[in-house]
Amino acid sequence: MQNTISRRQLLSLVGKAAGGAAMYQAMSSLGFAAQSTYSGPLQLQGAPRNITVLVLGAGIAGLVAAYELRQAGYQVKVLEYNKRAGGRAWTLRGGDEYTELGGARQRCEFDQGHYLNPGPWRIPYNHHAVLDYAKRLGVPLEPFIQVNYNAYLHAKKAYGGKPQRYREVQADYHGYVAELLGKAVNQNQLDAPLTREDQERLLESLKSWGALDKDYRYLSSPLSSDRRGYDVSHGGGLMPASVPSKPLELKELLQSGLWQKLAAGSVQEFQSSIFQPVGGMDQIVQALYRQVRDLVQLNAKVSKIEQGADGVAVTYTDTDGDGAPRQVKGDWLLCTIPLSILSQIEIDAGQPLQDAIRAVPYENSVKIGLQFKRRFWEQDEHIYGGISYTDQAISTIGYPSTGFGHPGKGVLLGAYIWGPNAYEFGALAPQQRVQLALRQGAQLHPQYPAEFENGIAVSWNRVPFINGCFGAWTDELRAQHYSNLCQIDGRIALAGEHASYIPAWQEGAVLSSLDAISRLHARIKSKA
Amino acid sequence: MQNTISRRQLLSLVGKAAGGAAMYQAMSSLGFAAQSTYSGPLQLQGAPRNITVLVLGAGIAGLVAAYELRQAGYQVKVLEYNKRAGGRAWTLRGGDEYTELGGARQRCEFDQGHYLNPGPWRIPYNHHAVLDYAKRLGVPLEPFIQVNYNAYLHAKKAYGGKPQRYREVQADYHGYVAELLGKAVNQNQLDAPLTREDQERLLESLKSWGALDKDYRYLSSPLSSDRRGYDVSHGGGLMPASVPSKPLELKELLQSGLWQKLAAGSVQEFQSSIFQPVGGMDQIVQALYRQVRDLVQLNAKVSKIEQGADGVAVTYTDTDGDGAPRQVKGDWLLCTIPLSILSQIEIDAGQPLQDAIRAVPYENSVKIGLQFKRRFWEQDEHIYGGISYTDQAISTIGYPSTGFGHPGKGVLLGAYIWGPNAYEFGALAPQQRVQLALRQGAQLHPQYPAEFENGIAVSWNRVPFINGCFGAWTDELRAQHYSNLCQIDGRIALAGEHASYIPAWQEGAVLSSLDAISRLHARIKSKA
Repeated sequence: MQNTISRRQLLSLVGKAAGGAAMYQAMSSLGFAAQSTYSGPLQLQGAPRNITVLVLGAGIAGLVAAYELRQAGYQVKVLEYNKRAGGRAWTLRGGDEYTELGGARQRCEFDQGHYLNPGPWRIPYNHHAVLDYAKRLGVPLEPFIQVNYNAYLHAKKAYGGKPQRYREVQADYHGYVAELLGKAVNQNQLDAPLTREDQERLLESLKSWGALDKDYRYLSSPLSSDRRGYDVSHGGGLMPASVPSKPLELKELLQSGLWQKLAAGSVQEFQSSIFQPVGGMDQIVQALYRQVRDLVQLNAKVSKIEQGADGVAVTYTDTDGDGAPRQVKGDWLLCTIPLSILSQIEIDAGQPLQDAIRAVPYENSVKIGLQFKRRFWEQDEHIYGGISYTDQAISTIGYPSTGFGHPGKGVLLGAYIWGPNAYEFGALAPQQRVQLALRQGAQLHPQYPAEFENGIAVSWNRVPFINGCFGAWTDELRAQHYSNLCQIDGRIALAGEHASYIPAWQEGAVLSSLDAISRLHARIKSKA
Repeated sequence: MQNTISRRQLLSLVGKAAGGAAMYQAMSSLGFAAQSTYSGPLQLQGAPRNITVLVLGAGIAGLVAAYELRQAGYQVKVLEYNKRAGGRAWTLRGGDEYTELGGARQRCEFDQGHYLNPGPWRIPYNHHAVLDYAKRLGVPLEPFIQVNYNAYLHAKKAYGGKPQRYREVQADYHGYVAELLGKAVNQNQLDAPLTREDQERLLESLKSWGALDKDYRYLSSPLSSDRRGYDVSHGGGLMPASVPSKPLELKELLQSGLWQKLAAGSVQEFQSSIFQPVGGMDQIVQALYRQVRDLVQLNAKVSKIEQGADGVAVTYTDTDGDGAPRQVKGDWLLCTIPLSILSQIEIDAGQPLQDAIRAVPYENSVKIGLQFKRRFWEQDEHIYGGISYTDQAISTIGYPSTGFGHPGKGVLLGAYIWGPNAYEFGALAPQQRVQLALRQGAQLHPQYPAEFENGIAVSWNRVPFINGCFGAWTDELRAQHYSNLCQIDGRIALAGEHASYIPAWQEGAVLSSLDAISRLHARIKSKA
């Protein structure tokens, strides 16, 4: 608990040096334990000897469990269905092959150095547990660009199908909102218990925040163009004089629906700063895997999970071997298999856990990576990283947050699809998905047809090890089943993003794993 | 003009493949020439033989000029006052020594890998010329984090001096603005020509953008806490349930003035994405310098600039030599010496240029770099890059946008001071500036006293090669003098950020240089 000690030492120093007020402030500003459910590296002490814990699944939850349980002194064995560790924390690179349910096989043709993360692709700053593992394992992180003011917002029916720049939509929306509220204040129509002085402060703030002129109007001017961009930018020497741009009309802006994405960077998970591991999202799980490699058996397809008074037994087949059923035994078991798969496996468990395992539906999602001959989004359009949004099925075009200005090729996230559209895309053959993403993306980037080289498409409902994307809890389902899913059932505990309040994120999987093994450890000690 | 050709080829391809509508869209979305005053690498053709251009100053303007003029076929000689090239694009690293006006000498004691950029420290995405030089010279860029939602906004008199997180202030400000405007709409008090349908759209947008509940209220709830943060965050397994946080009161928020910084990331120069060269801002000028090193004479202090019908002559002393005046002659001259210095040098020029040179006052600014034993802002407070703002004199605390999660030491920008405060800081001895920055910074980061190791402080009014920071044009001064400053006077042209509409930015210096040498080239050809 190095962090905790250094914080304590520090608080003591502050207290001595600067007295109580500074101490109070220090405590508040250091009090991140109050915010986070992660309070630093796990310290499991007093593990009984010769206890074996089986871990099912070598995704991030299973790998973290294996790493921590061995540190604590347990014997650990991990069974993993895939021929690789990492689960959904998966990175596709040139030469990788992937066969989906239904048999379609794709070979990733990206050039060296390029990749697609079909699963998680970013790590929020407040995902303390994942960040801490990256730090402890020496995995370098780089900023992921979420909001790019120069990226596009696009709707088929808005502005004749011509994409607008994020900066234009945001500047204009803020400007009009400020202007409209300013009018209400100035006309004494504000329904809020504010003194005249506070109303003046509100007006002042609206002017500053919304780029309003001295009369609280949002107009074409250097003030608004400093935010939305100029038609002709400022130059040097005797270059042509700058020309301010003209704001979008309020009415058309409201009708466009483009404002729907303005909050995309304001949600805590997407707030700057936000990160990605250098080289691909699998770098964290691969670093974990290197720590526990000797404990992990790949290609192990679990078919049965049994438990009794004395221990647990798991039946599996080696998918790379003779296909004959084998069995491994242990004292306790942590199962991180996604519920979409676990619900198809015979498991000895009480009815509440059985019901919980079968209760949670899985979302689907599709991601498509597209390699282009050059980084035209940077060279032609000055979009460096970030995301463009469209109301077409592809929904998202994600630009690489690395290799800025590189003269070579580039790989885009050409689609990130949710909901019914994901099932429609999933129903197509992989190369048809790619073609459709190209057609839709060309509405934002007409360079697509001339610059395209190759693509790869992952539809999560066809991914063999999960048949879906993540556990789609509803409030009702949580109230009924979540606690039952997480309680230790005899000698079995579950973990994974599906056993967390942070679904679909690695942080949820890691916190769930840490919580489950902490409780398992306590239970084991109490029984020893 | 590789970019232009590839754009043309592309448009032709699009036209053939997809017809006129796509072509139109392609043209619009590729039409960045309409936005930028930089249209790709300079192509100066037909330079007469054996023409020598003298360049005064090896900052970015002078280096770009030397690089481009030699490419064009000119003989070039550069005189630089400092013992290094780069001018204000300056990076201080461990071992560097710096003596300011007044004689105070500082030695930078940073550990290896850490640095302070006393001058420019970021490159906006729309500074196309600087970005293009970085690209052509192979200088790697990394994202500069401007807005960090987890950084602090601090005012001495607000919230008992306790800093607030940016995300809290922004979420709450947006929430209240949305709620207040929503009320005005719902009470039919909106003074805007919107149909009832558009008003409904406005309400819908306010709800989405401001995190309002179904009744258009901004309240403590998961909805607002998803943006401003939770008191207890979501966890995994059976960890404690999340607890939403409570918004700041509107009245107090308005009085705090903390909203003043909410537009800081909305101005085009600070919009994401924004960059820094890997390793320090001097990497671009150093890459340029490597290209023209043989043309540059360092330690050359210019004392007189003469011109006649046949050429120009510059008198200088070698500050590293015997101090005797020397003279270098040429046919034409590009002078990039800051006006604050040039106005003290004898120069043969017409009255309009003489007046312009003397007309422009220079701003002052102070930057202070502080090295700490550990990156406590990351470890304790989860602030990765970005900026905290305070209404104390230090104004800004800038966190490094690189080396995230590194277990070692860290260097902060501990102060970035403008206006009268800069002169007050500049009047102090360097180590007093550092001590004052430490005292003020400790109001945001109580770890300062325990973790501080060393610091360095640059007050630009005491920087010998400029005696100031940048040319502080007013609209009135521009109307009177700007054109005269930029016109070629006989055989002399001026360049630098002071000869641009983008003051204080490298982009202004580069565009000014490109414009000046283009006009100089045309003039030379016309006289040949």
